Amino acid sequence: MTLQLHCFGESGNSYKAALALELSGLEWQPVKVDFFAGATRSDAFREFNAMAEAPVLVDGDFQLTQSGAIQQWVTDQTGRHGGEAQDKYEVLRWVLWDNHKLSSQAGMLRFLMNFLPEEKRPAEVIAFTQGRLKAAYTTLDTHLAGRDWIMGSGITNADISCCAYLFYPEPFGFDRKDWPNIDRWLSNIEGVPGWKHPYDLMPGHPSDRG
Amino acid sequence: MTLQLHCFGESGNSYKAALALELSGLEWQPVKVDFFAGATRSDAFREFNAMAEAPVLVDGDFQLTQSGAIQQWVTDQTGRHGGEAQDKYEVLRWVLWDNHKLSSQAGMLRFLMNFLPEEKRPAEVIAFTQGRLKAAYTTLDTHLAGRDWIMGSGITNADISCCAYLFYPEPFGFDRKDWPNIDRWLSNIEGVPGWKHPYDLMPGHPSDRG
Repeated sequence: MTLQLHCFGESGNSYKAALALELSGLEWQPVKVDFFAGATRSDAFREFNAMAEAPVLVDGDFQLTQSGAIQQWVTDQTGRHGGEAQDKYEVLRWVLWDNHKLSSQAGMLRFLMNFLPEEKRPAEVIAFTQGRLKAAYTTLDTHLAGRDWIMGSGITNADISCCAYLFYPEPFGFDRKDWPNIDRWLSNIEGVPGWKHPYDLMPGHPSDRG
Repeated sequence: MTLQLHCFGESGNSYKAALALELSGLEWQPVKVDFFAGATRSDAFREFNAMAEAPVLVDGDFQLTQSGAIQQWVTDQTGRHGGEAQDKYEVLRWVLWDNHKLSSQAGMLRFLMNFLPEEKRPAEVIAFTQGRLKAAYTTLDTHLAGRDWIMGSGITNADISCCAYLFYPEPFGFDRKDWPNIDRWLSNIEGVPGWKHPYDLMPGHPSDRG
């Protein structure tokens, strides 16, 4: 049975799982979660995933959520993206850092600035979060000085996690041209054979909502 | 050589690593990071840890940051807190969820509400974050209905991660009496032989600053 990933194009967290699957060579298919129609807030979805979030990986009777856990599952299945054995903790460290400091804030901020009606956008929260994200971009850009990848000599789950929200076109205060090491590293990721942009890899695009 | 954990009492993220070490039976000693005197913002600390955060584990030449990565290292060293083999992904999933949705927000909010001068506290950010945390408490409390532990029949890294900020006395809008399943589960954790409160396990307490 083909693996299914319940996901949607606007979700950077979904993208982390989708890109890991796509680059691993596993056969998979996306199933669109209609987030903007309230799908993740329904009782049926909450039954499906108590965290009420996408992505959800389904492999027969097995299901798993949280992008970082799905990434680890893909690595365990295929041997891909885990990095060298001695780098295991460093890869995990950057996946956790991304979840804690980068994606969690970038995802929220992008939502507030683009997908909320303009009159509902909380200005103080937006400014505060942009300040915190600047610290995160600085950490990442500094780490990437002189490196092609976050850890080791090829793409790992650390890269796949940290890059996810940084490919989206909707403005949230991040411009890759401001961060030369991040910019070069994003180009390295775009150059990986099989790489696809989130909107080319998963169903769902802002233009769907007119 | 004895393991060292660079940490401070007020840090829930430090506590996740300290509690994992303490309950694992490994010999370790805390080294106080003087966060409130600006220690993590110094160039020397940034050299030590590019993420400019506590905790940092030091084992001879090896060093590691991010509480979830340190927890995994403790599990790999001791076989403790990883849960049953079939629960590996579920444990990781909750550690990631905590980093993404619970601790990242609770830690920031507690800082804003208690450790910033009153005139600098951003009211809109505080209210917004309290709303998001209520959703996280609901997810955790719902999951814990009918369960003693987040996964399986004993304490795992999932519990150690999710509980960390919930033991602190400084007010940030969480009262365990409002969440009966979380309250019962926190009591289970307090009952684990060797359990210690963050302020009893690590150096550094708000009263140090007068």
